[in-house]
Amino acid sequence: MNEPLRIGIAGLGTVGASVARLLHSKSNSLTHKCGRPITVTGVTARDRAKDRGFDMTGIEWFDTPTELAASDNIDVFVELVGGENGAAFDSIHAALENGRHVVTANKALLAKHGLELAVIAEKKGLILNYEAAVAGGIPIIKTMRESLAANEPSRVYGILNGTANYILTRMERDEISFEECLADAQRLGYAEADPTFDVEGQDTAHKLAILTSLAFGTKVAADEIYIEGISNITLADIHAARELGYRIKLLGVALRTATGIEQRVHPTMVPLGSMIGQVDSVTNAVAIEADTVGSLLLSGPGAGGNATASAVIGDIADIAKSQPGRQEAPVFGRPAHELEPYQRAEISSHAGGYFIRLTVHDRTGVFASLAGHMANNGISLASIVQHGSSKDGSTDTKTVVLVTHETTESDISNALEAVLGDGHLVSKPQVIRIEPAG
Amino acid sequence: MNEPLRIGIAGLGTVGASVARLLHSKSNSLTHKCGRPITVTGVTARDRAKDRGFDMTGIEWFDTPTELAASDNIDVFVELVGGENGAAFDSIHAALENGRHVVTANKALLAKHGLELAVIAEKKGLILNYEAAVAGGIPIIKTMRESLAANEPSRVYGILNGTANYILTRMERDEISFEECLADAQRLGYAEADPTFDVEGQDTAHKLAILTSLAFGTKVAADEIYIEGISNITLADIHAARELGYRIKLLGVALRTATGIEQRVHPTMVPLGSMIGQVDSVTNAVAIEADTVGSLLLSGPGAGGNATASAVIGDIADIAKSQPGRQEAPVFGRPAHELEPYQRAEISSHAGGYFIRLTVHDRTGVFASLAGHMANNGISLASIVQHGSSKDGSTDTKTVVLVTHETTESDISNALEAVLGDGHLVSKPQVIRIEPAG
Repeated sequence: MNEPLRIGIAGLGTVGASVARLLHSKSNSLTHKCGRPITVTGVTARDRAKDRGFDMTGIEWFDTPTELAASDNIDVFVELVGGENGAAFDSIHAALENGRHVVTANKALLAKHGLELAVIAEKKGLILNYEAAVAGGIPIIKTMRESLAANEPSRVYGILNGTANYILTRMERDEISFEECLADAQRLGYAEADPTFDVEGQDTAHKLAILTSLAFGTKVAADEIYIEGISNITLADIHAARELGYRIKLLGVALRTATGIEQRVHPTMVPLGSMIGQVDSVTNAVAIEADTVGSLLLSGPGAGGNATASAVIGDIADIAKSQPGRQEAPVFGRPAHELEPYQRAEISSHAGGYFIRLTVHDRTGVFASLAGHMANNGISLASIVQHGSSKDGSTDTKTVVLVTHETTESDISNALEAVLGDGHLVSKPQVIRIEPAG
Repeated sequence: MNEPLRIGIAGLGTVGASVARLLHSKSNSLTHKCGRPITVTGVTARDRAKDRGFDMTGIEWFDTPTELAASDNIDVFVELVGGENGAAFDSIHAALENGRHVVTANKALLAKHGLELAVIAEKKGLILNYEAAVAGGIPIIKTMRESLAANEPSRVYGILNGTANYILTRMERDEISFEECLADAQRLGYAEADPTFDVEGQDTAHKLAILTSLAFGTKVAADEIYIEGISNITLADIHAARELGYRIKLLGVALRTATGIEQRVHPTMVPLGSMIGQVDSVTNAVAIEADTVGSLLLSGPGAGGNATASAVIGDIADIAKSQPGRQEAPVFGRPAHELEPYQRAEISSHAGGYFIRLTVHDRTGVFASLAGHMANNGISLASIVQHGSSKDGSTDTKTVVLVTHETTESDISNALEAVLGDGHLVSKPQVIRIEPAG
């Protein structure tokens, strides 16, 4: 029997406790698969007394993550503390300096400090694995970092936040408002008490920043992302989308363009009959378009204790199968010191189709004015839908939905500014970008 | 600079030539990703004179795969010759005996000899990678073999043959018969001159046998698969499926049941609004249901020179990143000598929903007879659709479509035998199993 791989787990919340339980309950099968036992030898968490459903006999308790990271009795430090700085960063740093491999699910930390930690790990010949940090149980990191070695991706996009997707799915299915859905999601534990991070796109942005680096070989640039959340999406948008053959999803998109790389997070129209259009509820999905393989799509659970633990244990198993001193795959697919600077493509130069929903006064000449401003800005319309009266039942306003052919963000802005100037609009126009499915 | 990894490629057809071209054109980026250059040092193919779009300078030519496999000037033997025996088997065998890692895309060979070759590879500490053998560019082998270490799958199913899926997609989209579609697919190069292997399910079965072994830790059992092809699927089936909210796909399904493991390949009703229901044309998809992660689905190109080469090069890159003498991941996820015997669950005990399309004489009492035989066999009906006259326009026959709730294959057989005995049927009943999406 080979030497066991000794695991230290920092953080015993839903995911950490699940990892500990599974390493125990699946220990036979993991030993077969990895050729050596995997044993939890140390843990740390906020509350020592709490029962987490696994036997602590023989497991050493540490008071802080950093003390666990410094232990000589672990081979792998599993960081499930969370937070982009503080204990999570300090303890991972300490573990690497102490010669321990690291597994983390912490996207916020990787988005901020991933490059710095990768440099240390690679210098020391250590493994830094983070499959659980993006899209939970979906093996997207391994796919991009290992399977797609022969590829230069041109676009990566996905549904990366289960809370936001749950809300959009429920709004459509149950015909209820964003606010009602959010309250329900909070009741069911799918949304935090402060949901900003999920529904306003920050969480998606952290994950996107990691995918961008893996796709394009650039330094992680989480501060260079255009972000719009879903809190202003209404049932009227969802109905209009469906009528036109689309569904609204909060996507993170990274796209190589002639002027640089776009990173954007925003509500997006995706085709109803596409695979990504069928990704419902808390399920996540990531699509990759690349020169050699073409289009791939991976979908699965983006969160949840066991699904996330599945990814964490996959990372641990890879370490168990590796030889000590082995030169590992670089953390972001290329050696960290060779990652290129991120060159941002501005959202104003974004090219694509647009969905524009306008509520206008029911007057003669409104249509001509709209059409004129679009034409003047070189925008060609794919479809126009006009309903007799707006959804609020008033008879002196109309809803007009325009879908454009490919144009640019700046042309759309200019056209809408001109439309606003005419005074025909009852309220702010709703503009939603259209993303073609692969 | 680290030592280059030396590659010998046996077979320079579409995939082999693509691998050679890509290893050359992407050599810089592969060197960065793998930490060492990857160089083609030897090749063999049927026709030496043919121009394959890459520079042969410095590459040694061998007359047979086995001679290439025996060369001291290669580290990895890439088998792209094809065929389940003969040169493919002999050369892989020779390569392993000669201490060379092996990469192959040969599902037929793995389905037949995978276990034997895995035993040799593992005994010698060599890597045997075969990502391209199942579902082309989709990283399903790596996902099942590595990422899902913490999982015991309960079901794996997928669209594993692009030719069959292309035909079914075209039949629905263009309202043309199986025969017309097949002729078109042959014209476009999506189907072989002898299409039996693809449309009658053999190719799907080979791939399924490999997935079954990875999912359940059992010995590859390619001869223990229930197989039905798609050649008897008609437009009438496709129309009736759509009317009832289904689409017909040729699926390979491996399912753990109380009596053993079902392996079956057959035309299947999948829900129209499911992700797998949106997998069109030559695209493949594999879905996995497992205890820890829940449901995953991966989709992408199942064939094509570059897509397949992407998988082959991913396999080569993994070898480039490994250390000599490293204990590799077992070929089928568990050590080959620990794989359990395959215990077959018979198709007669299969439990599920069924779609049954019947053409009956338009007589009084036919309906009562049908309903009676179903009830007598304990079969509960989810829906019944009856059209005024059968699609062939004759007025003395009717088409009846039944969709059952979960029942068993043997109950269905008994009920249909009784129905046949009544003499109401104009033609053989069409029975298509329904597979729930995850």
